Amino acid sequence: MSGASDKPNLLIFHGGGPTPVINASLYGVVREAVDSGQVGRVLAGVHGVPGVLADRVVELDRLPDDALETMRVAPGSAIGSSRHKLTDDDKAAVLSFCRRRNVRWLLGNGGNDTMSNCHDMHEAAARSGQDLAVVGIPKTIDNDLAETDHCPGYGSAARYLAQAAHDLCCDVSSLPTPVSILETMGRNTGWLCASTALARTHEGDGPHLIYLPERAFDADRFLTDVEDTVRRHGWAVVATSEGLVDAGGSSIAVAASTVQTDGFGHGMSGGVASVLQDMVSGKLGLRCRYEKPGLLGRASTLHVSDLDRREAEAVGRKAVRLALEGQSGVMVTILVERNPGYRWTTGTAPLARVANIERTMPPEFLSPDAADVTEAFLDYARPLLGGELQRHQHVRRLP
Amino acid sequence: MSGASDKPNLLIFHGGGPTPVINASLYGVVREAVDSGQVGRVLAGVHGVPGVLADRVVELDRLPDDALETMRVAPGSAIGSSRHKLTDDDKAAVLSFCRRRNVRWLLGNGGNDTMSNCHDMHEAAARSGQDLAVVGIPKTIDNDLAETDHCPGYGSAARYLAQAAHDLCCDVSSLPTPVSILETMGRNTGWLCASTALARTHEGDGPHLIYLPERAFDADRFLTDVEDTVRRHGWAVVATSEGLVDAGGSSIAVAASTVQTDGFGHGMSGGVASVLQDMVSGKLGLRCRYEKPGLLGRASTLHVSDLDRREAEAVGRKAVRLALEGQSGVMVTILVERNPGYRWTTGTAPLARVANIERTMPPEFLSPDAADVTEAFLDYARPLLGGELQRHQHVRRLP
Repeated sequence: MSGASDKPNLLIFHGGGPTPVINASLYGVVREAVDSGQVGRVLAGVHGVPGVLADRVVELDRLPDDALETMRVAPGSAIGSSRHKLTDDDKAAVLSFCRRRNVRWLLGNGGNDTMSNCHDMHEAAARSGQDLAVVGIPKTIDNDLAETDHCPGYGSAARYLAQAAHDLCCDVSSLPTPVSILETMGRNTGWLCASTALARTHEGDGPHLIYLPERAFDADRFLTDVEDTVRRHGWAVVATSEGLVDAGGSSIAVAASTVQTDGFGHGMSGGVASVLQDMVSGKLGLRCRYEKPGLLGRASTLHVSDLDRREAEAVGRKAVRLALEGQSGVMVTILVERNPGYRWTTGTAPLARVANIERTMPPEFLSPDAADVTEAFLDYARPLLGGELQRHQHVRRLP
Repeated sequence: MSGASDKPNLLIFHGGGPTPVINASLYGVVREAVDSGQVGRVLAGVHGVPGVLADRVVELDRLPDDALETMRVAPGSAIGSSRHKLTDDDKAAVLSFCRRRNVRWLLGNGGNDTMSNCHDMHEAAARSGQDLAVVGIPKTIDNDLAETDHCPGYGSAARYLAQAAHDLCCDVSSLPTPVSILETMGRNTGWLCASTALARTHEGDGPHLIYLPERAFDADRFLTDVEDTVRRHGWAVVATSEGLVDAGGSSIAVAASTVQTDGFGHGMSGGVASVLQDMVSGKLGLRCRYEKPGLLGRASTLHVSDLDRREAEAVGRKAVRLALEGQSGVMVTILVERNPGYRWTTGTAPLARVANIERTMPPEFLSPDAADVTEAFLDYARPLLGGELQRHQHVRRLP
């Protein structure tokens, strides 16, 4: 059952939503494992841990080079993913799978829920004395993992949103439908929505207002701000995170009928933009529409940040090296030195300091007195886009 | 007041929503007018006819080459646009402007409402005996103008939507949130939404179901179809036009509170996808979300069809040539010969046969027994994308 070689095998699984570069990390894992000469099979659970539990695995080391290169740049998760919290029975079943299939290295790629699963597997293996190194590979467009400067996937999603906000401003400023609300993903943290600020090209350009979950939403202030913006510029583009809450901590999103929960019990919110649209058209009498690209923001490979893709591959490679060294219970991190320039390398952090922790935006990234971000945030995020956006200027603004 | 030369001047205005290539048509107009040697100033109304009425015009012939090239590829409308139906007073005021500023050629770029304005100006000039040639330049992502094979702007918006649907399918098939609804623009016609069918790369790929305004929406049939699709494939991507109606002709979109009207009295619909989402989650108990890229589908220059941009420039140039020949009351059309290959040229049609007419999808493009389009539609639309999409394949589908 252990494949063509008697060398121990490596097993990888994906958890949570894909990013535009998740398969670049997977590519890094396969390349590094094969190149090491120490790994037998590179097994991947199809659709996450549930695939492992059902013995549905594929052998990625058998893929021909052209298939690997095809995989590297595909959106979605090439091996599928899941949102599955491991029960005690699941942990025992995964350990059993690893003994049966001679798996000595287990890699999990995902966000904080997946890091929680990895941490649990690390502890379960240690408790039972099974020789299994468990290493986490960071991944989330939400950018909310602790201990790392940023998360693979964020730079590309930020690039998508910044370009989208720029394009949207070009369109909305053309026409007498003065207000557009751009809703971004990011349930409890504002990193994604904040990246729309990188769209601005000139004084007075949008997005003019940016609403993040880290700040209580005040409807009266919002209406005043929109009205002021339209009065000043003739139009307004507003960016909002999907997960706004009011001062009492209640979601401002629509009816309970659309609120669903995932396998971790997290609410799936949505509809914030349509609530804001109704407020603007109803209370201010302004023509208003909304755009909600949703998953397109993490599936569009036309907007991938080259830097993000290189970093994603690197964290996959690093995870294999750590595991082969026998390190376990750690996640790969990205360490950055900024200003001047941008220099990155990979590091490690204990899974215990990452699992289940959601990193919100720090106060120094939030404007103290406006619905906006600070220069410090722009300096943080700008290099992650991996290069300049496709920027345009209109004749009505030309000198 | 007639500028540096005593040659007569040309005036252009934009009407309605921009396309990703509207400024390529504008570029064609400026280049052709300047190259002809017969035109003095190329004047443009800022934000449409209302700009002309307020004497807010820019002189595009004065733009340096680099500014013209910048303009050519920008999203939005470089000179602004409006949705303004001409009153009798407006027509007289435009004629007066043209006399005052020595304008002998008037070009309007837009959809059927703008062609109606052009037709009205042509008749007003003829009635008053004023020497003014009025020519329409077709433009609409909706692709609903009569007398032309297709409309500039459609190919690029179709390319955006087909790529978006493909990327979305890669993402949704990765995860156990099995249903996503992709809402497209297209108020009364299904051309835009239909283009998502070009995303499919293999048997069983999405979008699995496509709902168009040309067909009455049947909620029971919809739920059965979604349930069947998820049972067969494990996931479903559904494309829907923003303007679905039921058998009684009523919009299935949300509350009247979000329904606004534009200057032509057309309703602005929205919210169809969220209604369908509620049906799928409420009635079928399936996890469902929706994506609504909205204006991003006509503002993203990363998705422009090269063919579309070339055709857009050509119709702008042709409009100038027709006007200089003294033709009036006509719109430029695109004539196409298909199968084998794709060969296009420009033609003309009387504005009277275009104004206010909305071309819906013909029956032969609609699948008789499924929520889908026909091969005949795919053959029609495929060349308009201007080349293959960025297509991806997943390891879990590799041989």
